[in-house]
Amino acid sequence: MRRSQNHSRASAADDSEILYGLHTVEAALQNPKRRILRLLVTGNAARRLAPALTSAGLEPEIVAPRDLDRMAGAGAVHQGVLVLARPLDAVRLDQVPRRATLLLLDQVTDPQNVGAIMRSAAAFGAAALVTTARHSPQASSVLAKAASGAVEWVPFVKVTNLARALEELKGYGFTVLGLDSEAALALEQAPAREPVALVLGAEGKGLRRLTRERCDHLVRLDLPGPIKSLNVSNAAALALYALRNRA
Amino acid sequence: MRRSQNHSRASAADDSEILYGLHTVEAALQNPKRRILRLLVTGNAARRLAPALTSAGLEPEIVAPRDLDRMAGAGAVHQGVLVLARPLDAVRLDQVPRRATLLLLDQVTDPQNVGAIMRSAAAFGAAALVTTARHSPQASSVLAKAASGAVEWVPFVKVTNLARALEELKGYGFTVLGLDSEAALALEQAPAREPVALVLGAEGKGLRRLTRERCDHLVRLDLPGPIKSLNVSNAAALALYALRNRA
Repeated sequence: MRRSQNHSRASAADDSEILYGLHTVEAALQNPKRRILRLLVTGNAARRLAPALTSAGLEPEIVAPRDLDRMAGAGAVHQGVLVLARPLDAVRLDQVPRRATLLLLDQVTDPQNVGAIMRSAAAFGAAALVTTARHSPQASSVLAKAASGAVEWVPFVKVTNLARALEELKGYGFTVLGLDSEAALALEQAPAREPVALVLGAEGKGLRRLTRERCDHLVRLDLPGPIKSLNVSNAAALALYALRNRA
Repeated sequence: MRRSQNHSRASAADDSEILYGLHTVEAALQNPKRRILRLLVTGNAARRLAPALTSAGLEPEIVAPRDLDRMAGAGAVHQGVLVLARPLDAVRLDQVPRRATLLLLDQVTDPQNVGAIMRSAAAFGAAALVTTARHSPQASSVLAKAASGAVEWVPFVKVTNLARALEELKGYGFTVLGLDSEAALALEQAPAREPVALVLGAEGKGLRRLTRERCDHLVRLDLPGPIKSLNVSNAAALALYALRNRA
């Protein structure tokens, strides 16, 4: 019979995830739907986080910075605070608000980019971020850190088949816009009253054929300079801003 | 007397830099001001890059992917191509066009973010990216990869003192706008006919006091959602877009 020899060492099992970084952990502590299993902080961070800890009614475990280095992984900017938490309940596409802007990602996998997109989605009040279950970003801790707390606000919907999800959204009345740097139509000119579903592809590859075929309109961002493509998270932020300022 | 025992191993000395990735290297090969010292490619990449190599008149060294892994560093997405090149000539502030939009960064140091900002600067036709020589991003290879070729288009100006640089730009007729999420004035309402110098601070810290005091206007991006701050590269892209669409 094998037993853990070290009960003080936290590890993320299948039913838990590691979140770190000040904004990320503060947002998790403030989210009533988030169940925190363990909260580990350095002495310095405990003083900075004192108000949030008090209101969350949690007893933090004081640890050394190197303990967090090890748990968060190489290069992770944990800022002295880390929680082990239950993942949030999965959200289905049919549970997403019907008068809203949604973002969908077609095989965008870099967790830094997806995290930044999640953060922009929260900043612009988008109702959900939809990805496929396969070819979706790994490294949820990295994603959550880049999202700077936004994972607590924006539901992350994972679907089996993106083309079918777009059909489902059209059935709910969504206009589906696919971002494509070669499109004839500028995003600013597209008919796009909410509900709108905005689809972005991976850098280089763009939208897959089946995804493109499900879009009501392919739209481009006008870029006047010598480089005609943007980092995908920058493109997502611009598209959300452009949609909002013409609505 | 010490001598290199391995002449086939490239390394970036003080007067050379390593660039990798398809877009980044293609842009370097197309830049007449860029002096390429060595070009290393895998067999696969040599076939993909054949047109660019032919027009650049360069003889590539065919190497194994693991050679590039080692030279580019852990986790670098080199896509089978790497060059050793001379850095571009330094550009001074007084050499930058006087009817233009400039971006200035106040101690933004993450090379991924600065690279993405460089890319957006090129996409929106900004004339230069200005940072302080100290507290500027390290890891120029990572920055250049994230910039996806934009380092060949947008001059990177390094100044000793940012506040003094802002005074100099005001002397040339620039309106200096500082981005600040707490500002009373929305960017869309700011008086900002070119020439405009847009200043962004590091996430969390924002603009330093001396930087703020030199701005003609502090301006905010309106974010309607529950999160009120963006990734700094997303904020830069939005600000460039908003400035352009109101000019």
